[in-house]
Amino acid sequence: MSAIPEEFIRKTAQLSEEVTRPFSNSKKIYVQGSRPDIRVGMREVEQSATHTNDTPEYNPPITIYDTSGPYTDPTAHIDLLKGLDALRQNWILERNDTEQLAGPTSEFGIARHNDPKLAHLRFEHLRKPRRAKAGMNVSQMHYARKGIITPEMEYVAIRETLRLNELRKDPRYTKLLRQHPGQNFGASIPNEITAEFVRDEIARGRAIIPANINHPELEPMIIGRNFLVKINTNIGNSAVSSSIEEEVEKMVWSARWGGDTLMDLSTGKNIHETREWILRNAPMPIGTVPIYQALEKVDGKAEDLTWEMFRDTLIEQAEQGVDYFTIHAGVRLQYVPLTANRLTGIVSRGGSIMAKWCLAHHQENFLYTHFEEICDIMKAYDVSFSLGDGLRPGCLADANDAAQFGELETLGELTKIAWKHDVQVMIEGPGHVPMQLIKENMDKELTDCFEAPFYTLGPLVTDIAPGYDHITSGIGAAQIGWYGTAMLCYVTPKEHLGLPNKQDVRDGIITYKISAHAADLAKGHPGAQVRDNALSKARFEFRWEDQFNLGLDPEKARGMHDETMPKDAHKVAHFCSMCGPNFCSMKITQDVRDYAAQQGLTEEAALQKGMQEKAVEFVRQGAEIYKNA
Amino acid sequence: MSAIPEEFIRKTAQLSEEVTRPFSNSKKIYVQGSRPDIRVGMREVEQSATHTNDTPEYNPPITIYDTSGPYTDPTAHIDLLKGLDALRQNWILERNDTEQLAGPTSEFGIARHNDPKLAHLRFEHLRKPRRAKAGMNVSQMHYARKGIITPEMEYVAIRETLRLNELRKDPRYTKLLRQHPGQNFGASIPNEITAEFVRDEIARGRAIIPANINHPELEPMIIGRNFLVKINTNIGNSAVSSSIEEEVEKMVWSARWGGDTLMDLSTGKNIHETREWILRNAPMPIGTVPIYQALEKVDGKAEDLTWEMFRDTLIEQAEQGVDYFTIHAGVRLQYVPLTANRLTGIVSRGGSIMAKWCLAHHQENFLYTHFEEICDIMKAYDVSFSLGDGLRPGCLADANDAAQFGELETLGELTKIAWKHDVQVMIEGPGHVPMQLIKENMDKELTDCFEAPFYTLGPLVTDIAPGYDHITSGIGAAQIGWYGTAMLCYVTPKEHLGLPNKQDVRDGIITYKISAHAADLAKGHPGAQVRDNALSKARFEFRWEDQFNLGLDPEKARGMHDETMPKDAHKVAHFCSMCGPNFCSMKITQDVRDYAAQQGLTEEAALQKGMQEKAVEFVRQGAEIYKNA
Repeated sequence: MSAIPEEFIRKTAQLSEEVTRPFSNSKKIYVQGSRPDIRVGMREVEQSATHTNDTPEYNPPITIYDTSGPYTDPTAHIDLLKGLDALRQNWILERNDTEQLAGPTSEFGIARHNDPKLAHLRFEHLRKPRRAKAGMNVSQMHYARKGIITPEMEYVAIRETLRLNELRKDPRYTKLLRQHPGQNFGASIPNEITAEFVRDEIARGRAIIPANINHPELEPMIIGRNFLVKINTNIGNSAVSSSIEEEVEKMVWSARWGGDTLMDLSTGKNIHETREWILRNAPMPIGTVPIYQALEKVDGKAEDLTWEMFRDTLIEQAEQGVDYFTIHAGVRLQYVPLTANRLTGIVSRGGSIMAKWCLAHHQENFLYTHFEEICDIMKAYDVSFSLGDGLRPGCLADANDAAQFGELETLGELTKIAWKHDVQVMIEGPGHVPMQLIKENMDKELTDCFEAPFYTLGPLVTDIAPGYDHITSGIGAAQIGWYGTAMLCYVTPKEHLGLPNKQDVRDGIITYKISAHAADLAKGHPGAQVRDNALSKARFEFRWEDQFNLGLDPEKARGMHDETMPKDAHKVAHFCSMCGPNFCSMKITQDVRDYAAQQGLTEEAALQKGMQEKAVEFVRQGAEIYKNA
Repeated sequence: MSAIPEEFIRKTAQLSEEVTRPFSNSKKIYVQGSRPDIRVGMREVEQSATHTNDTPEYNPPITIYDTSGPYTDPTAHIDLLKGLDALRQNWILERNDTEQLAGPTSEFGIARHNDPKLAHLRFEHLRKPRRAKAGMNVSQMHYARKGIITPEMEYVAIRETLRLNELRKDPRYTKLLRQHPGQNFGASIPNEITAEFVRDEIARGRAIIPANINHPELEPMIIGRNFLVKINTNIGNSAVSSSIEEEVEKMVWSARWGGDTLMDLSTGKNIHETREWILRNAPMPIGTVPIYQALEKVDGKAEDLTWEMFRDTLIEQAEQGVDYFTIHAGVRLQYVPLTANRLTGIVSRGGSIMAKWCLAHHQENFLYTHFEEICDIMKAYDVSFSLGDGLRPGCLADANDAAQFGELETLGELTKIAWKHDVQVMIEGPGHVPMQLIKENMDKELTDCFEAPFYTLGPLVTDIAPGYDHITSGIGAAQIGWYGTAMLCYVTPKEHLGLPNKQDVRDGIITYKISAHAADLAKGHPGAQVRDNALSKARFEFRWEDQFNLGLDPEKARGMHDETMPKDAHKVAHFCSMCGPNFCSMKITQDVRDYAAQQGLTEEAALQKGMQEKAVEFVRQGAEIYKNA
């Protein structure tokens, strides 16, 4: 009999049902790689035909980057109590550079594992952790530098390409592939993303694939400025609110709506067990800030933190499968006084914890002094660094100051050390920055950190909108994404106010999908505009359902449309309540084109001929246009 | 006895009560100008003291630009059935260049006025319209060019300045006035806005004060790139939904949340009467698109439109008090074929109506050919032009194309003609534009239209998010505002889907207040950062109520905060549910500062001394810091 409480089982079963509901008119497709077990999931949105002429015009399906994993595959059996299939298990095993451990090797991990009082909280199907064999390095960067294209690299190459090569050969997509040239500020986005290109970018340190060997459930994804801009979502309980099942639900919810990676920022009870549930069910890379848990272990007393217990925490989490760690190793003792005259001091939790520790001990940050030992752990599990910006500005007034930029330079120094160990690195960035100072952040990061991927929180471009900080930050995120940031850390409407609920998570994700996509378009990422073009064509042709289905949030769009339409018939009408039947400009333009088609002319010719000869006839025939509306 | 239905009276009475509720801890203040009847309303937000030390630190009140008019003044008597006081009436009368008419002079206006069947819909306290005396020009531009500083100009100078000169002399504001230098792309924002500067900007055509002599209720405001960036809101019924009282409610709602101007885009029934109700109760300039009503008059048959009936419509609306007209005079016959190969053709309603008319008659747009006659009407009432972008792109694919830019050049040509008549002009802009193409729009507008104020719709930076187009467009709006756009036309979440309701209007406004303010900050508008700084300081010091009250939407922020706090005590707590008591970085940094204060040192010295000598003592004393949380 299961030790898991009935209530928990009941809740997760309900959840499974809700989150496995496919999006309407969408299906999961798999693109086959060079071997049978490389199958990259994508979402394909079917479109209806256009009915403005006698012959219906076929509209081809649109392929969409899909973060939802098996959750939207009706053929997948989802059971949160058992976890997802271990997609990468064979890839890891066949490299033959890891070994299975008898069990957790961290003191804390062992203690939790053996505590019978935790049985009702513990994930029941724990896998024994793996670790690199002695002297081995299992990071994707290490393989890349040895010239090896891993299945993970091939996977992301296929995933990023979104079948663009096929589309380019298919005349039905010719019009939809129209795209404006980008302005990419020195990025080198290729016309075609190959596995070799992925390998090269990882070898150079310009991109990372966060993929812990103990998280084989993960569908590989890549973070780098020559790839699609990604978004990270944050969840996590706190001492004040939330439970394990709520956090698992938020993770699946995040996957459904488009979160590319997810950080578990839990700071409350049972962090270890919560994380296990999340990891075993997560198709996306999971990140953490290990110092949060370390602080819990010393009852919140920052000055009691030690390298030894922090190290134990890293191993504990690496053996669970965490894919990237935020490490605030750049908060050096010398920078702390630089924050004293700030308007809002140090606002990063990790940053303030480390600053407090430094002051209490009058010693250099132990994350900095032990950085090479941290690298040794990272490469034994392939955990990626997310070098934390503990001194990021917490308000506009503190943006781009000496403390912030001092830390950034140190992060560059640490990047070099990590790369010496072939450990993957990304760099965290601000924060609160007015628009005119955003670009300096990006430029300085590229220079100081040698083009390691930048991963920014927003930035928020004004401080005056609590309750709407998904928007204040979405504006900054779109810009910094355009300038070259590889991953945008989402902000929800609850930022500064409280712990986000499910709806806040969704609002934050959609906002950041918008910012990331806007950045892809501005950079001229090949094929980025296909979805915009398809949706706009659908909109223009009053294919309402296609418009909804191609959007980032079909349910919301459909709901908003339907709520203002008084009659059922209007739900398929060729106009909406915004303009009413007579005033819809789309309809008017469509009528003009229909007229051209009637005359058997091409549109342009019809317009020109019409102007010269057909004016009278147009009036005679066209006067009926509005009557049937 | 009133002819107005009971139901209507009941509804508007309820409305009055709801919308006159002042914002918490805010009061309406009036800044006196050079004469008793120049009293400029502003909102002042009181702050509580800071209690982190023994001596409470006084936090000064913050002055906020206020669009809500008398509605948030508890001393004002609001009665929607009677309309607002005629603030500008004396200014208009004393210029002695207008005459009161016996009644409406447009055919349509007369007919509506005399129709007894409309009594139950008609505003009951109609004023007789005024018009310039024969040969007179009553536009603000005309006065400005004659060197006259009108009360309206002085009013906006005071309004824009927001008491900054006082603040600069008051040491309590010194820290709050800290601000990053702006990047303003050639704008000439003065350190101090004087009435003479306003006059000069209007004379040059770089700014406008939309203020019809028949809208004396209006509180003057200015639109120009050397002033605060403004936002326009759209409301309006359609044939499908909405009623007069709903539209009036949305107008007041728009004023409350920060709409600087408002366009009544009604296209349904009783447009004339709806507009009257709106105007008589509107403290902000009201704009319309007269062609919509003209089309109603010909039962939606664009080809039946004539100059004569359009002219009658202009006079009808000018005599009601409409402050600016969108006129699609740039949709020239020659540009129409340029739209034939677009993905989404012509999406502006006005643009498609005029294109249809041109094609049907094979004639040049009558708005273009009769433009000087339109100018004659405009200057007789001081209606400002909003030269419409009838060929704006309706999707990314169509952005910055020949049709759009051809029309823009024509708008420049028309601007010169309007200026010849001393008629005020602003230029409407797109639309749907990917980020990398936004700046070209602004630059081209400044060149082609001789720095006339740009007034843009968004632009939306991606097409894939129906249901979230306030955000897709807010991103573009912030950027184009930064580059120099003077006014941003809001977009609500319902864009492309249906008619916005009250909540959508609020969401759209707050989003655009964010974009406009972000642009002010980026341009380095003097004093723009005061509110950000004050709010951030409040946030850092856990003055929750001050943080809410200084935000753009205090009610939303307060609600979000309270919903995640399980205990009442937490509502005044020094932490929030996001981090819980032990992990709040703000609290940790505050503790570090408190420690410095305890030691009687300045913060910076304490930090430095602490590092050298006090480490042990800090641990001994500071270990208690978290216990009371």
